[in-house]
Amino acid sequence: MKALPLAKVYQLLEPGPVVLLTTAHKGCANVMTMSWLTPMEFEPPLIACIVSEANHSFAALRATKECVIAIPARDLARQMVAVGNCSGRTIDKFKKFGLTPLQAKRVKPPLIAECFANIECKVVDTGFVKKYNLFVLEAVKAWIDPKRKNPKILHHRGDGVFAVDGKIVKLQSKMP
Amino acid sequence: MKALPLAKVYQLLEPGPVVLLTTAHKGCANVMTMSWLTPMEFEPPLIACIVSEANHSFAALRATKECVIAIPARDLARQMVAVGNCSGRTIDKFKKFGLTPLQAKRVKPPLIAECFANIECKVVDTGFVKKYNLFVLEAVKAWIDPKRKNPKILHHRGDGVFAVDGKIVKLQSKMP
Repeated sequence: MKALPLAKVYQLLEPGPVVLLTTAHKGCANVMTMSWLTPMEFEPPLIACIVSEANHSFAALRATKECVIAIPARDLARQMVAVGNCSGRTIDKFKKFGLTPLQAKRVKPPLIAECFANIECKVVDTGFVKKYNLFVLEAVKAWIDPKRKNPKILHHRGDGVFAVDGKIVKLQSKMP
Repeated sequence: MKALPLAKVYQLLEPGPVVLLTTAHKGCANVMTMSWLTPMEFEPPLIACIVSEANHSFAALRATKECVIAIPARDLARQMVAVGNCSGRTIDKFKKFGLTPLQAKRVKPPLIAECFANIECKVVDTGFVKKYNLFVLEAVKAWIDPKRKNPKILHHRGDGVFAVDGKIVKLQSKMP
């Protein structure tokens, strides 16, 4: 894994990938599937994400205020869906689905070796948690796998239907 | 345009499309390009979006508390980028870029005829506006164009690079 400048973190999330979210609580790491998230600020990079209180990860995230957003490419589609269909209450999902935890640098939750990008995050605002389950995260360290060229991400359309990245187009945008 | 059940609104936004946001203020409609948004709740559908105070639309959205999220497919890529590269302060972007405003049912900002989906929204929480430019919207009416089969949406990777929807895969997800 190679460090990615924090100013580029939004570029990983703005396209709308399904992601994996890791947490660590009371000596146990866990991982869930998530796709309700958006960048909020360029630098320092802020991210809004929704983690339902029905998820086992909710308590860990609220208590420890740390997580890793790991971005799977298409090759991990089946594991990503399987992770979303069971609970860390009863299963070690890393073992069960062959995901390799790697030690992060700034937070306790692990990176996922099989993901092409990993973003270490700290919860910086819980003001919307009670009402909306919305956590404001700050990315404090980011990594990409330089061996993965042009990874195709998955976009969830609901009900288990995913669009995979297709053609890439470059248009003369002045948008930041 | 055909009405879309509100419970399906999240399916339009969860995949991470670049969208157009229309507002209407002091007799003038305006439109901007946006891609920092996420669903927050299924039903009633809530949406978090970031509209920078640098955008002309910010004042309209804050003052009127109404907007329409219009979703362009690939055929509108050039207009969508052009809309994002100029300001409604000086230009009628609908006229300039050939976008046709249609009257909405529950809000004053217009739908956009050329977009395959339109979501009428009201601002329901401004608690994170001052700090983050984050508006909480509630979708109050949604429309899709039944003539558009399988529209391919655009996902912004930053710097004017967009991924277009490619292959669609269906996996046995139990995710809601």
